[in-house]
Amino acid sequence: MTIPDITLIQVCDFVGTLAFAISGIRLASAKKFDLFGAYVVGVTTAIGGGTMRDLILGVTPFWMTNSFYLICSAIALVWVIVFRKLLVRQNNTWFLFDTIGLALFTVTGIEKTLAIPPADGGQFPFWAAIIMGTFTGAGGGVLRDVLINEVPLIFRKEIYALACVIGGVGYYIASICGLPQIPCALICGLTVIATRVLAVKFKLGLPIIKGE
Amino acid sequence: MTIPDITLIQVCDFVGTLAFAISGIRLASAKKFDLFGAYVVGVTTAIGGGTMRDLILGVTPFWMTNSFYLICSAIALVWVIVFRKLLVRQNNTWFLFDTIGLALFTVTGIEKTLAIPPADGGQFPFWAAIIMGTFTGAGGGVLRDVLINEVPLIFRKEIYALACVIGGVGYYIASICGLPQIPCALICGLTVIATRVLAVKFKLGLPIIKGE
Amino acid sequence: MTIPDITLIQVCDFVGTLAFAISGIRLASAKKFDLFGAYVVGVTTAIGGGTMRDLILGVTPFWMTNSFYLICSAIALVWVIVFRKLLVRQNNTWFLFDTIGLALFTVTGIEKTLAIPPADGGQFPFWAAIIMGTFTGAGGGVLRDVLINEVPLIFRKEIYALACVIGGVGYYIASICGLPQIPCALICGLTVIATRVLAVKFKLGLPIIKGE
Repeated sequence: MTIPDITLIQVCDFVGTLAFAISGIRLASAKKFDLFGAYVVGVTTAIGGGTMRDLILGVTPFWMTNSFYLICSAIALVWVIVFRKLLVRQNNTWFLFDTIGLALFTVTGIEKTLAIPPADGGQFPFWAAIIMGTFTGAGGGVLRDVLINEVPLIFRKEIYALACVIGGVGYYIASICGLPQIPCALICGLTVIATRVLAVKFKLGLPIIKGE
Repeated sequence: MTIPDITLIQVCDFVGTLAFAISGIRLASAKKFDLFGAYVVGVTTAIGGGTMRDLILGVTPFWMTNSFYLICSAIALVWVIVFRKLLVRQNNTWFLFDTIGLALFTVTGIEKTLAIPPADGGQFPFWAAIIMGTFTGAGGGVLRDVLINEVPLIFRKEIYALACVIGGVGYYIASICGLPQIPCALICGLTVIATRVLAVKFKLGLPIIKGE
Repeated sequence: MTIPDITLIQVCDFVGTLAFAISGIRLASAKKFDLFGAYVVGVTTAIGGGTMRDLILGVTPFWMTNSFYLICSAIALVWVIVFRKLLVRQNNTWFLFDTIGLALFTVTGIEKTLAIPPADGGQFPFWAAIIMGTFTGAGGGVLRDVLINEVPLIFRKEIYALACVIGGVGYYIASICGLPQIPCALICGLTVIATRVLAVKFKLGLPIIKGE
């Protein structure tokens, strides 16, 4: 097995962005959005988390100088229109792509946060990097649900954002064990994927908080 | 015909801000907001798009050092309270003012984006400027609808944000034809206005995306 | 009476953050959020206003380098789970703590805004500092209501954000009278508390804006 090269990361970025955008477009279509609205919701789902991360880190949002993400979202829009009736049958594929995206975006968020110093110098603490990784992975879905005027799904169902947190803890443990960056990133990403897959397979969820 | 001077731009800025704020305040009144809440929704509609643009560009939001926009929104609040029963009859005027605002804010967003370099130098690509112009014009309305807990209107009805995009493409074409800034801006603004007026006159809308 | 030292401010910060987080977690529990979702809503209520302020001011959000606020929110989550049935009986205490937090956060927001120069130098105008104080105090509650998909409470009921504005005006008057920083801050905080207590005691609210 070779170390994953830039091409594999790009493939993961592509299928992840596609899956995120498609989840937004599908939910927008259920709300009778027009094509423009559906595209905006798709884009927001795909890039919203990373945008919040970049604003908090004080850097230019990643998609502002790279049209890749807007083009991916356009492909997602065409895909939903063309394969509308087949989407349900593709659910397992989209779940897989979405999970790959979640894993990659979590790793990206953690590494970008550790690479960018706070305004007053030094480095962000690792827990802040884990939060930024979780933002990058799960924030777009929250913005999507705000835009379509629904209670954010990830706050009520399944383990989703928590998979990012667990993956981030995996990254932290691997790094304090002295592992170099690429194995840390792999451990993080695989932990996110394993957590998510196990949670869905065994219908694991967190307890609901009881009201008064 | 003389080149539009700073005063004409200020007049457009005033009537546009007024119209945006009034649209927010009217929707807030339908939701039984109190005066403070209605003012906040009005201000958000008027300045929300430009604020998102400035946060993404990494500059201080434009209204933080210029009280003009908050005063306009206060005038809008008084207007809605005093002329409450006449507002429906003024609908054509407010549509016109809103459209002027949409055109001006689109131009402002595009030009500010092209004038501010990204953190790593150079210039933002033109498509990013068009997106920022669309944010500036249509973003406030989206924030307004999130605050009043409605599905954003511009995602479901009429051509609104798309008029900004078309105007931005007009700006781009004019600029690659070598026209100087003011004609480019005029072409952009007039394209936004024409698109919006034609869309409303002929009830043009984008197709609704079909659900599964 | 001695001038409040840093410890008193920290106590106020703790009880305020706790009260804000608990208000978010209680509302999340009414919507059947899971533990993770409830925690996110609690954290957002506690730190959301200050985060918006810091993004607008162009500085790193305050909680990114200080785990105090996330730990407070975790304590709030445990508190709600353990004392679930007693929370209603503790309502007066939480109202008091929430009001203390509102006062402190307003002062913090004003002073931070005056201390940080805009990108082009100088100082923000005082009215911008009052707005930032109001954001810091009341913004988290608005984000909370957006996340749980409700119309923001502070736009419809009681005097809440307006108490921050009145406190901010108190700060301004005190400062133009030549008072030093600590008395200005005390006058601001006590004005916020007095306004809020009187508003609730006498059921004072702003008039509802009438629809067409």
